[in-house]
Amino acid sequence: MPQFDTVIRHGTLATASDVFAADLGVIGGRIAAIGTGLGPGVREIDATGKLVLPGGVDGHCHLDQPTSDGSQSADDFETGTRSAACGGTTTVIPFACQFKGQSLRDAVSDYHRRADGKAVIDYAFHLIVSDPTEQLLGQDLPALIHDGYTSFKIYMTYDDMKLNDRQVLELLSVARRDGAMAMIHAENADFIGWLTDKLLAAGHTAPRYHADSRPMLVEREATHRAIAMAELADVPILIVHVSGREAIEQIHWAQGRGMRIYAETCPQYMVLTEHDLHGHGMEGAKCICSPPPRDKANQAVIWDALAGGTFHIVSSDHAPFRYQDPKGKMLHGADTPFNWIPNGVPGIETRLPILFSEGVKKGRISLQRFVELSATNPAKMYGLHPRKGSLAIGADADIVIYDPDRKVTITNGMLHHNVDYTPYEGLEVTGWPETVLSRGEVVVEGGACVAQPGRGAFLRCDTPDLARPKVAAV
Amino acid sequence: MPQFDTVIRHGTLATASDVFAADLGVIGGRIAAIGTGLGPGVREIDATGKLVLPGGVDGHCHLDQPTSDGSQSADDFETGTRSAACGGTTTVIPFACQFKGQSLRDAVSDYHRRADGKAVIDYAFHLIVSDPTEQLLGQDLPALIHDGYTSFKIYMTYDDMKLNDRQVLELLSVARRDGAMAMIHAENADFIGWLTDKLLAAGHTAPRYHADSRPMLVEREATHRAIAMAELADVPILIVHVSGREAIEQIHWAQGRGMRIYAETCPQYMVLTEHDLHGHGMEGAKCICSPPPRDKANQAVIWDALAGGTFHIVSSDHAPFRYQDPKGKMLHGADTPFNWIPNGVPGIETRLPILFSEGVKKGRISLQRFVELSATNPAKMYGLHPRKGSLAIGADADIVIYDPDRKVTITNGMLHHNVDYTPYEGLEVTGWPETVLSRGEVVVEGGACVAQPGRGAFLRCDTPDLARPKVAAV
Amino acid sequence: MPQFDTVIRHGTLATASDVFAADLGVIGGRIAAIGTGLGPGVREIDATGKLVLPGGVDGHCHLDQPTSDGSQSADDFETGTRSAACGGTTTVIPFACQFKGQSLRDAVSDYHRRADGKAVIDYAFHLIVSDPTEQLLGQDLPALIHDGYTSFKIYMTYDDMKLNDRQVLELLSVARRDGAMAMIHAENADFIGWLTDKLLAAGHTAPRYHADSRPMLVEREATHRAIAMAELADVPILIVHVSGREAIEQIHWAQGRGMRIYAETCPQYMVLTEHDLHGHGMEGAKCICSPPPRDKANQAVIWDALAGGTFHIVSSDHAPFRYQDPKGKMLHGADTPFNWIPNGVPGIETRLPILFSEGVKKGRISLQRFVELSATNPAKMYGLHPRKGSLAIGADADIVIYDPDRKVTITNGMLHHNVDYTPYEGLEVTGWPETVLSRGEVVVEGGACVAQPGRGAFLRCDTPDLARPKVAAV
Amino acid sequence: MPQFDTVIRHGTLATASDVFAADLGVIGGRIAAIGTGLGPGVREIDATGKLVLPGGVDGHCHLDQPTSDGSQSADDFETGTRSAACGGTTTVIPFACQFKGQSLRDAVSDYHRRADGKAVIDYAFHLIVSDPTEQLLGQDLPALIHDGYTSFKIYMTYDDMKLNDRQVLELLSVARRDGAMAMIHAENADFIGWLTDKLLAAGHTAPRYHADSRPMLVEREATHRAIAMAELADVPILIVHVSGREAIEQIHWAQGRGMRIYAETCPQYMVLTEHDLHGHGMEGAKCICSPPPRDKANQAVIWDALAGGTFHIVSSDHAPFRYQDPKGKMLHGADTPFNWIPNGVPGIETRLPILFSEGVKKGRISLQRFVELSATNPAKMYGLHPRKGSLAIGADADIVIYDPDRKVTITNGMLHHNVDYTPYEGLEVTGWPETVLSRGEVVVEGGACVAQPGRGAFLRCDTPDLARPKVAAV
Repeated sequence: MPQFDTVIRHGTLATASDVFAADLGVIGGRIAAIGTGLGPGVREIDATGKLVLPGGVDGHCHLDQPTSDGSQSADDFETGTRSAACGGTTTVIPFACQFKGQSLRDAVSDYHRRADGKAVIDYAFHLIVSDPTEQLLGQDLPALIHDGYTSFKIYMTYDDMKLNDRQVLELLSVARRDGAMAMIHAENADFIGWLTDKLLAAGHTAPRYHADSRPMLVEREATHRAIAMAELADVPILIVHVSGREAIEQIHWAQGRGMRIYAETCPQYMVLTEHDLHGHGMEGAKCICSPPPRDKANQAVIWDALAGGTFHIVSSDHAPFRYQDPKGKMLHGADTPFNWIPNGVPGIETRLPILFSEGVKKGRISLQRFVELSATNPAKMYGLHPRKGSLAIGADADIVIYDPDRKVTITNGMLHHNVDYTPYEGLEVTGWPETVLSRGEVVVEGGACVAQPGRGAFLRCDTPDLARPKVAAV
Repeated sequence: MPQFDTVIRHGTLATASDVFAADLGVIGGRIAAIGTGLGPGVREIDATGKLVLPGGVDGHCHLDQPTSDGSQSADDFETGTRSAACGGTTTVIPFACQFKGQSLRDAVSDYHRRADGKAVIDYAFHLIVSDPTEQLLGQDLPALIHDGYTSFKIYMTYDDMKLNDRQVLELLSVARRDGAMAMIHAENADFIGWLTDKLLAAGHTAPRYHADSRPMLVEREATHRAIAMAELADVPILIVHVSGREAIEQIHWAQGRGMRIYAETCPQYMVLTEHDLHGHGMEGAKCICSPPPRDKANQAVIWDALAGGTFHIVSSDHAPFRYQDPKGKMLHGADTPFNWIPNGVPGIETRLPILFSEGVKKGRISLQRFVELSATNPAKMYGLHPRKGSLAIGADADIVIYDPDRKVTITNGMLHHNVDYTPYEGLEVTGWPETVLSRGEVVVEGGACVAQPGRGAFLRCDTPDLARPKVAAV
Repeated sequence: MPQFDTVIRHGTLATASDVFAADLGVIGGRIAAIGTGLGPGVREIDATGKLVLPGGVDGHCHLDQPTSDGSQSADDFETGTRSAACGGTTTVIPFACQFKGQSLRDAVSDYHRRADGKAVIDYAFHLIVSDPTEQLLGQDLPALIHDGYTSFKIYMTYDDMKLNDRQVLELLSVARRDGAMAMIHAENADFIGWLTDKLLAAGHTAPRYHADSRPMLVEREATHRAIAMAELADVPILIVHVSGREAIEQIHWAQGRGMRIYAETCPQYMVLTEHDLHGHGMEGAKCICSPPPRDKANQAVIWDALAGGTFHIVSSDHAPFRYQDPKGKMLHGADTPFNWIPNGVPGIETRLPILFSEGVKKGRISLQRFVELSATNPAKMYGLHPRKGSLAIGADADIVIYDPDRKVTITNGMLHHNVDYTPYEGLEVTGWPETVLSRGEVVVEGGACVAQPGRGAFLRCDTPDLARPKVAAV
Repeated sequence: MPQFDTVIRHGTLATASDVFAADLGVIGGRIAAIGTGLGPGVREIDATGKLVLPGGVDGHCHLDQPTSDGSQSADDFETGTRSAACGGTTTVIPFACQFKGQSLRDAVSDYHRRADGKAVIDYAFHLIVSDPTEQLLGQDLPALIHDGYTSFKIYMTYDDMKLNDRQVLELLSVARRDGAMAMIHAENADFIGWLTDKLLAAGHTAPRYHADSRPMLVEREATHRAIAMAELADVPILIVHVSGREAIEQIHWAQGRGMRIYAETCPQYMVLTEHDLHGHGMEGAKCICSPPPRDKANQAVIWDALAGGTFHIVSSDHAPFRYQDPKGKMLHGADTPFNWIPNGVPGIETRLPILFSEGVKKGRISLQRFVELSATNPAKMYGLHPRKGSLAIGADADIVIYDPDRKVTITNGMLHHNVDYTPYEGLEVTGWPETVLSRGEVVVEGGACVAQPGRGAFLRCDTPDLARPKVAAV
């Protein structure tokens, strides 16, 4: 066996399946060996008392994504990937979002320009299709899938991006035929519009009314409809950012009928509640995201679904807008009505620590399940496995050395994103990433990012196995 | 790194999480390294074109188990473990069954005597409690759990073993307090008795009426009741040998409510149907087991639940009785009425090939899911993980080198059990185990067992994590 | 007690609650007394061996309704009501359908002109809102509700009438505030469009493909969505013409959650199947309606839901188009593709006989349930009760004397509609209306209509109690 | 028409179907005519401003029923029926309960002796089978069914009466074959026993722990099992005294599968909660019944199921034990542990007023539904219809003249039972029965019972139509 470039020694390795003590050796940026008493490495890292995990794969985050309302993403590919890396994530999959009228290929080119030279970790792109022309459906999208953009997101709400059911079906047909994973934001746009107008007409403009404009049935209805479309098109789908019981019930029902319906949730639905939108003045704007956080009872249902298998991945849905900012949460000043406040919370760096602390440390999920939800399954979901998401021989040496016992009180000051707040300010967690390697290179050390912008590489994705239609059983 | 005793080269390794090309090195009976270009081994095995899998763990089989009706188990620990090994299984967990009036400790001692000097692979024991006295509940069972017998089976039917609900609750309380996994055979004894008497009174004694005496609702009712008892006692349970839709619906419902209800199925419910009990004369007796196989539609539901996650393990429920034998299926001669025919089908050797061929090869489940269902999860379910069931560093080198492409038509002549038939006679499968190692020692080579009886060791089981009560989420 | 105008003697009276022997006396067109040994009537009718039932109320039928595709309703208010009366129906509630751009009041006036001087029995109007302008929502519709048009239909499909979810919510808000019953045609227009284009592209234009363009999930999805909208608007709704299991499951689920979701089905879903669209040439066009008839298994589910209470009313959805007619089923000739064939089947005359024969005579529903489904509940559903639909003192003497034992083979020749076919040609039924009274006047005798066109009166409807929002229980 | 014995004038009549103004004339104890302007009666009763309803039928009450624990029924047939009559009930169906070892015929004879000469209103008997011998199943029970005892109750709990599943199935087979309605008390005896012993071992003996010994899943499990047995035996059943959500969900599920599962609830589940068992000292014993009252949320579910149709009848389950009595709630003195406190609450007189006030007056159910639940359906359920439970010609003139607006605060002093408390002390209701007729005879007038003991007659019941197995639909 040739000399190792790096050996991580004496750690406890965890995969989606197993936890065991071993050394791990890296050659040429890839995992070359796992075993006891591995030969020497050029660099030796002592992981005694630490966990050695596959780097996190954040399958849902927004970086440098222009908007149509004049707001501005606080994070570009440099600050965003740096924050991700510091939180133990080694692969991000942000979006390349088509504007209406724009060709999808142009959108992709634009995003490549945004990412080039900036990312500190590897990245792929999901596409967002907002204008499914015949040209797009027949040629551009299939070609891009072929080129490694094998997932796309469909919005059932948001005026500038929402598609009607017919368009969704057309896109699901492409997903089926050309081999892509369709991600669906499931909320009913008409329901939201109707409720919003009623709230505004009643003078209810404060941030807290955002939650009232999107009650659970808004999400449940769209979830049922999305499932029906997946059934009609005969193709798996992923329901993103599921927030609570009623949507989960629809998904669980479909799964019980043998359908391949995948589901994602995010830390905001584990630890925030609707009450966090109730703060003084605009304070609640910090926690405005869609769907909104629900209540404690729904958090319990989220955890059950995480432990029990209804959910497949945990993502951040990092959507960074500054709070004290006329291009952020205060887009229309300190009285911005809830429906004009940019949607989204930052969380690319806190995703793993929250899931680990609230999940593994509190005994709700196993360490293997943590790895599966945060790294392995996202890689599988988007055609990056086994290159990413696993401690497997031949895989990229994207590795987190995680201190399972470190106690941290989250403050925004300690985070590396370019946002002026975190919704988790003051949350105490146990466990934090210590050292992070990307393709064998140490990118985070002692809590600081030591990587050069631009070292992160673009990843072409394969058609995920999970996207394949179910084989009839008989 | 020291010299390897054995290196398996150029294979494709599969775990419950990952599939990748690598060599695997064994030292001292344990997996010492996994990597590319491992150093030399004393023994080198070429696995080019082959899968390298963790040996199967058969979490449900009956070996040398005396019965109260005069029938006789066809397989003892020698023939049974030999057959298991030839089928790619490296750990079996048969039962130590208490007779009414017998102390549980005596039962365990008796089974150790039966196993001593005979097994060719490692084994643990589940307990079967048929007489839950105060002494047993308060002292014997806790002591045995402490000694490594951390699972026990509860029968809701069969006259000589069935427990009433009160007794089941007492046992589940012990499982909760002392840390054991409770396995439940869920069929309603009274329903079966009532139907059986009606059938017999109508002169319906042929094997096929076995299925009529145990329709799906017999299983559904008991499954619901078992779930209710698990809820009341607040402890996870495993429902064994689930046969079809209605029972699965109850389990899926409970899982959707956040309960830890685990479920097992067996190959007989994937490929046999009730129609297989309809043969000429006693022919149908060969496929009599409980619950009985259902129909094609239920097979489809079984596959959905295997792919989707409702099921956690696949076992054989090997229960070997000879067909042409007055101590076997013809216990009362060629006119043995169905209710006197010993229940059970042999299948310890065909478990992996059928699941692999019908599951992986036909695209219904992934290779990782195959490993998970047949090896990793059974080891986790019964406190043998990570020692068994995984290709993890430090784990026992229980390994199957599996030819994924070999086409085999199953005949009883090729099997190694001591039964004079297989219910799968004529079934064509793709894929078969080629070489099998147990703790680093080759025990099967070229389709033949080369191991010495008695080399198999008894395994003490830990309390499985999966047996722990759910942590309240909020 | 004054002299009776008419006494019906020696019959067996049936209400939604009771069946008993009694005479029935009419004074001034109203039921004045029910009892034994009533005094003499000017006219005496002997009902020995016959049932005396409240005349049927057909809550869903289309008469003289112009279409936008050039097809033509075969029945006007004269032929339609005559056919209804001959079938035992004494009240019909056809539609006054707004064209896009037309004021709702104008539509109503137009339909009054169509009905004036023609109807032989009493009638009310449902409104169809196809263009819910602010004027309509704020003024016209509330005013019409106030004037006695207390129900309206919402289409989720059909290009010229479908409303989007936002519009549906606006209308449901009016229903809640002003007290009207909203009827919903629940099929997903986009799903149908997508499937239709795929079928046409594959050259599948024959009538049978109509069923393939509207599979059950098209209906299930829209049913779930309609229920969600009713929940959001907090108002009861009626799902019309439910065709089978999946839609029923959604309705049953909502009812189990305490929602007031009412449901209607029609004879075509009890006795026809998709197979009836498979005839030679255009033959299948005769049975094209939406949703399409399903299969035998779904018929069984329909009957269960009729007996069990999930359904509240049975209507005809009489939509009469002639078969051999360029303004009927052959709108584009003998090769009219399925999607251009006018939707609907005639059945205003056969509704009661089919429900009675298949339901009461075959033991699936009681005679009381028959009365409830076909007369009492429709009257309650639309604010006509207790004037119509009951044998109650003070109610209009709308009465059917029904021969429960007469055997009839249905042929189109015996029917009184203006359609050249019946989908039930050859169906044998037991029981047929013999004599029919409307407000005490005999309008059908010996199977012939003896009423003057124009004698039928327009009925103003009250706000139905069933349309009121649920009172919170605690 | 002959002269009427009695005419009730100017009232508002209500049936399960209709509400209308009319006079009602009685001849020979039967309803002879309903109409406007009826001829004179020997007795004229003015019902202006009052409701004229069919007298209530209480399908579940215990009168003079000996127990095995030394407790004593506070009400015999005189006090019990007097109390019932004063509450607007004109028919009661108490139980004839077999002791183990006693012949069923002897039990029936004994109860006739208890009733003879005492009842002021008519009565029938349900049987309670506690010892289903072959003689009973094959001869005695069929003979009694033939003689007019067409319903029997099966206990799944209570040591002295509970039957095992096999026995239940045998009894359901008799119900199917001989035409009887089986009523099932669905609680799991083993679950209760296990919980009770745990509570007692922990020193929890106060009345409030009764509720902890019988949580909802105790009832849910038995309900599911009862449904499974009904499915196996293919016969309708009635689940009695359903207390809340989880049991209702099982019933609703079965109804949705097309099964004929009927359900009863009682006023105690509408207005009491578990909290009523929490009083000082033994106070909570007053509200001990089984199943126990649940909570406010479950009350809401009860009302939904009453309005929606899941429930078919409302009974009192009057089980009268005195509070300050060593043969009543204080069977073992002031420290009687909860499991020795006689189960049951009195309520035969308050059943109609509570259902009317909380149901009709508060807008949760219609007046027709009130009549249906409290009178018509119980009569149908037990083969007494149309003789009882309806305002139908020929029916017994069992009539309540009900003041819908009278406000009453319930106190025990105003009630006519022989119990020293009412669980509804202080409850304010609107509406109270004013005058009650039984077979045309005024038995209650001005709130006082004016009937002679012994005037009440025994009623032979027919096989109820509702007890017939479902006709297969196809």
